[in-house]
Amino acid sequence: MKEKIVLLGGGGHCHSVIDVIEQENKYEIIGIIDKKELIGTDVLGYKIIASDDELDEIYRTCKNAIITVGQIETNHVRVKLFNKLKELGFNLPVIVSPLAYVSKHSFIDEGTVVMHHALINANVKIGKNCIVNSKALIEHDSIIEDYCHISTASVINGGVIVKEGNFFGSNATSKQSIVIDNFIKAGSLAK
Amino acid sequence: MKEKIVLLGGGGHCHSVIDVIEQENKYEIIGIIDKKELIGTDVLGYKIIASDDELDEIYRTCKNAIITVGQIETNHVRVKLFNKLKELGFNLPVIVSPLAYVSKHSFIDEGTVVMHHALINANVKIGKNCIVNSKALIEHDSIIEDYCHISTASVINGGVIVKEGNFFGSNATSKQSIVIDNFIKAGSLAK
Amino acid sequence: MKEKIVLLGGGGHCHSVIDVIEQENKYEIIGIIDKKELIGTDVLGYKIIASDDELDEIYRTCKNAIITVGQIETNHVRVKLFNKLKELGFNLPVIVSPLAYVSKHSFIDEGTVVMHHALINANVKIGKNCIVNSKALIEHDSIIEDYCHISTASVINGGVIVKEGNFFGSNATSKQSIVIDNFIKAGSLAK
Repeated sequence: MKEKIVLLGGGGHCHSVIDVIEQENKYEIIGIIDKKELIGTDVLGYKIIASDDELDEIYRTCKNAIITVGQIETNHVRVKLFNKLKELGFNLPVIVSPLAYVSKHSFIDEGTVVMHHALINANVKIGKNCIVNSKALIEHDSIIEDYCHISTASVINGGVIVKEGNFFGSNATSKQSIVIDNFIKAGSLAK
Repeated sequence: MKEKIVLLGGGGHCHSVIDVIEQENKYEIIGIIDKKELIGTDVLGYKIIASDDELDEIYRTCKNAIITVGQIETNHVRVKLFNKLKELGFNLPVIVSPLAYVSKHSFIDEGTVVMHHALINANVKIGKNCIVNSKALIEHDSIIEDYCHISTASVINGGVIVKEGNFFGSNATSKQSIVIDNFIKAGSLAK
Repeated sequence: MKEKIVLLGGGGHCHSVIDVIEQENKYEIIGIIDKKELIGTDVLGYKIIASDDELDEIYRTCKNAIITVGQIETNHVRVKLFNKLKELGFNLPVIVSPLAYVSKHSFIDEGTVVMHHALINANVKIGKNCIVNSKALIEHDSIIEDYCHISTASVINGGVIVKEGNFFGSNATSKQSIVIDNFIKAGSLAK
C-alpha cells in the first residue's frame, strides 16, 4: 500500500509535481492545501482540501508533505511553509521522477523534488526543499544549498556551488567551478 | 502485424523521423514520397517510391501518412501536404518516440511527431501537424497550436501559448505565461 | 565476467565517466592513472594505482583503457595519451551510457565516451577519442571529427561538421548545415 502525501500549493508547479508523483507511484496524493476560497476545487483530478491553518489536523491522518508552490522572484513562501511543516512534525520526502537520473554517488536532502528528465551527476550534494526542475543538469562535484530552484533545462557545470536560496533560471548555463549567490536570469551565462 | 505508413519528404528531418518510427516499432514504413527525379533512391534503407501526384494511388494500399518535410522559414509546404492528405482520406497518426515522455494529462492532435528525448509535461495541448523536436521541453499548462515547429532542445515554460504556424528555434527559451506569435530565433529568449 | 579497464586522469570528468561505466556495467575499473604524488588516493571508491610511466606494466594485466582527462582549452593532453595508449597496444572501447541514445544508423569511433542523457540521432559519425558530454544533442547527418569535446547540454543541429580537435561549449547551439572549426563558447550560438 502506498503512503499518503499532501501537497502544499495548487498552481502550475503543482501540476508538474503531481505528474512526477504519479509516475513515481510511491505516494497516494490525499489532496492539496491552498487558499480557503479554493477549497473544493479540482487540480488535475485532486481536490483542494484545506488551507494552511488546518495543517495540524491534516497531520493526524497524513504524515508526508511536499511543497508544490513555485519559486521565481523569492523563496519566502517555500521557506515559511517548510519551517511550518517541520514544526508540525511532517516528514518531507525526497521526490525523484523515475525519468530523472540521480547518481548513487550523490546526496539529496529532505523536501527536494527532482523533476522529469533531470540529471544529477556523480558527487553532487543538494540541500533541503530545492526544486531541480524538468531537464535540469547538475554536473559532477557541484553543491546546491538549501531552498534553491534550479529551473527547467538549466545547466550547472562541474564543481559549482549555488548558495542558499538562489534561483538559477531556465536554460541558463554556469561556467564550471564557480560560486553563485545571486538571481540568474533565464537563458543567461553565469561566469 | 504492424500497420503500414508512408512518409512525405526524404530530407534530413525524415532521417530523424525514421529513427523514431523504428524505435516506436508500431508502423511499417512502406516508402517515401518526394520529387519525381528522386524516385528509386534510398533514404536510410527505405526507397523513394512516388511523388505527390501519386498519393491517391498510394492510399489504396496504405492508409497512414506522416509529413517528414522540415519547417524553418515557413510551414507552407507542411500545411499544403496536410490538407492534401486529409482530402485523400489519409489517417495522420500521432508519432511519439518511446524515448520521449508525454504526460497522461496532456493531449496531442493528429499528424504531430514527438521526437527522441522530448518532454511534454502535464496539462499541455498540442495541435495538428506539429514537430516537437529532439530534447524539446514543453512545460505544464502550455498550448502549442497547429502547424508549429518546436525545435531541438528548446524550452517552452509553463502556461505559454504558441500561436498557429510558428517556429520556436533550437535551444531557445520562453518566459512563462506568455503568448508567442512570431518567429523565435535559435538560442534566444522569448519574453 | 566483466572485462577490465583502466582510466587515465582522476579529476572531475573522471567522476562522470566512472558513473557512466558503473551504469553501463560492462567493464570492471581496476584503477586510475594520474600523477605520481596522487598514487594511493581515492576517486569515488577507486584507487589511483600508477602514473603514465607505468602504463606498459598495467597493459600486462589490463588491455582496455579510456581517457578521463577533461578537455576545455586544449585537447593536447588527450591526444598525447591516446597516441601513447595506441602505441602500447591498448584497446580503447567506445563507452556509451545506457541512459544515452545512439541511433543504430550512426557510427562512433574508438575511445569516445557518450555520457548520460546524450542523444546521437540518425546518420551521424563521431570520430576517435571524443567526449559527447551529458545531455548533448547531435542531430541527424552531422559529423564530429576526432578529438572533439561536445560539452554538456550543447546542441549540434542537423548536417553540421565539427572539425578535428574542437571544443563545442556547454549549452551552445549550432545552426544547421554549417562547418565548425573553432572554439565555441558556452551558451553561444554558432552560425
